[in-house]
Amino acid sequence: MEFKKDLGISEVTLEKKLTFKNFPMVPRVVFGAGCFDQLGDILLSKRKHSEAPFIFLVDDVFEGMELVSRIPLLFNDQIIFISADEEPKTGQVDILVKKIKEEYSDLPSGVVGIGGGTLLDLSKAVSIMLTNKGSATGYQGWDLVGKPSVYHVGIPTISGTGAEVSRTAVLLGPEKKLGINSDYTTFDQVLLDPDLTKGVPKDQWFYTGMDCFIHCVESLEGTFLNAFSQSYGEKAMDLCKEVYLEDLEDSESRDKLMMASWHGGMSIAYSQVGVAHAMSYGLGFLLGVRHGIGNCLVFQHLEEFYPEGVALFKKMQQKHHIELPTGICSGLTSDDFDKMIQVSLGMEPLWENALGSEWRNIITPEKLESIYRKI
Amino acid sequence: MEFKKDLGISEVTLEKKLTFKNFPMVPRVVFGAGCFDQLGDILLSKRKHSEAPFIFLVDDVFEGMELVSRIPLLFNDQIIFISADEEPKTGQVDILVKKIKEEYSDLPSGVVGIGGGTLLDLSKAVSIMLTNKGSATGYQGWDLVGKPSVYHVGIPTISGTGAEVSRTAVLLGPEKKLGINSDYTTFDQVLLDPDLTKGVPKDQWFYTGMDCFIHCVESLEGTFLNAFSQSYGEKAMDLCKEVYLEDLEDSESRDKLMMASWHGGMSIAYSQVGVAHAMSYGLGFLLGVRHGIGNCLVFQHLEEFYPEGVALFKKMQQKHHIELPTGICSGLTSDDFDKMIQVSLGMEPLWENALGSEWRNIITPEKLESIYRKI
Repeated sequence: MEFKKDLGISEVTLEKKLTFKNFPMVPRVVFGAGCFDQLGDILLSKRKHSEAPFIFLVDDVFEGMELVSRIPLLFNDQIIFISADEEPKTGQVDILVKKIKEEYSDLPSGVVGIGGGTLLDLSKAVSIMLTNKGSATGYQGWDLVGKPSVYHVGIPTISGTGAEVSRTAVLLGPEKKLGINSDYTTFDQVLLDPDLTKGVPKDQWFYTGMDCFIHCVESLEGTFLNAFSQSYGEKAMDLCKEVYLEDLEDSESRDKLMMASWHGGMSIAYSQVGVAHAMSYGLGFLLGVRHGIGNCLVFQHLEEFYPEGVALFKKMQQKHHIELPTGICSGLTSDDFDKMIQVSLGMEPLWENALGSEWRNIITPEKLESIYRKI
Repeated sequence: MEFKKDLGISEVTLEKKLTFKNFPMVPRVVFGAGCFDQLGDILLSKRKHSEAPFIFLVDDVFEGMELVSRIPLLFNDQIIFISADEEPKTGQVDILVKKIKEEYSDLPSGVVGIGGGTLLDLSKAVSIMLTNKGSATGYQGWDLVGKPSVYHVGIPTISGTGAEVSRTAVLLGPEKKLGINSDYTTFDQVLLDPDLTKGVPKDQWFYTGMDCFIHCVESLEGTFLNAFSQSYGEKAMDLCKEVYLEDLEDSESRDKLMMASWHGGMSIAYSQVGVAHAMSYGLGFLLGVRHGIGNCLVFQHLEEFYPEGVALFKKMQQKHHIELPTGICSGLTSDDFDKMIQVSLGMEPLWENALGSEWRNIITPEKLESIYRKI
């Protein structure tokens, strides 16, 4: 260890120095109202040959709508409509991959996800599993993916999840709700067209936007924060405040919420989320509560951890007359609570970010149960 | 044109819709004080074989300094020290490429630029010209590069230029000062280590940081602005204000200025700079005035175009006791002025961004000369 002393670096510092992530950013992005019409040109240069299709995974709310007629189909391309009513599942990924492999002799030129976080995460996972063996369950975790995915494009139609920019694809498996976190997960291309978010119902607009807002609170209040993450988190937070507390024109509001989601995703990419996400994962696993609303259900009761954030959240909720459902956990057995608590406590990096390395002394199963019981 | 009417889109809108840039982002970034020590690991996976070296282009202020001993040399790697006293030149790029090609039988595994905007732009240009034929002068302009460059890494040692994130490599040629703007220009990897900016002299720290501040003003006040660019520009501007108007700790100040440069670069990547940059290009071409100080020399006289920005600039200048040189243009002939004005007016996209499509009616050669004469 002499060399460390020579450099005047303590062992602790050296260890910390080795933990900087070499973060993969989305290498191509196009932004602007109407830019969806450029998708055909973008995909053209990525087509391997006429037998290698593009697979479009599209939220089924768009079935029969104008957007579908604008999808630039060529050769044997295929649109697969998928419901986003439930959280994306590992089994769903496995079935999609099997179906695609059976139908085509060639590997697809690429996968294009059009929808919210569910569709984007499914698309990321499918593009990975087309080139990696076994079930998606085998890749839930950190850096377990060995081979590059096929080319994949993310096109969000609702803003807030940050899935368009993150290196994770969160999936509900039989054992756990956990992301496929890898450098190959990140989209190769993102298309940000704020016009695509025009038809989003108000409650979903709120819950999904609050996913971004809660990301930012968790990232900015977390112990993993650095200046990189902070600058993105602060900007996303500023944009959320503009969108949810000021009275912007519709088009400006759509533009800004889309950028909030983008920057919010960048912020957590280089730091981590916290208490609300850890607990929301438990709700999602046991009850299938969707991520956006799940975060809101939990976050409203987290004054103890995020006093300013929760106050702002309630102000936004009030301004937009959003009533959150109640009694979600009222019929649960103690086994159910145990399962939720187990899933939640399994999210160790989230707890460490939120409460520091001694987090186990602060957050106990009893504490978690008492919060879940309020929901 | 029937289909346009059917869609309810006017021709003007349609034309505008087709102009969204598909912007290349730096696909990998590592951030943190001390992260320079991870360079060896990062390069290892990119080494093609032992005969294909990494070429490190390093600002010669670091010659003999500790940083050089930390450059992870292997096999036949080479460090080339380069003075940043003058603006980077096309001739310099051509000589470097010739030298590298003569010395090695194999194409390098990559090029690593360590320094300020000059070194970063040189590195970007050299990595392009190692795979593209002819002189660098043939590629000054927009999207003239046909072949992918070699892998290249940018490591800024001063903050503000945004060269670490941009898709341009600005070079002084025999005919013009103009960037090689292409998708292949963008770095494949950026390493942001705020500790590397520790030794920067105060005046350079100011001029280069003001390059970022001026970018932001020009981008935010420009006609090309969209919500993408705006969000980055506003964040960079906020960070500049913190760094230059508040009293931050040194390490926090270094961190934040490095992020300001990053976001400022992103902002102009998707919009454009304006009057100060267009005029500064003229100064740079004729007198070799370096970019950072050149921008300051021009910007101080642009109250007419950017009243708030210039007021803030003067406040920052005052707080840090920066005296700008005077009489720079006092000995010039009218031929000299003509040449500067010609170079400056040649920057059409900058003028259009600053003043709209009718810019020629607003900015005349006489107007430009009157501003240059104040410098």
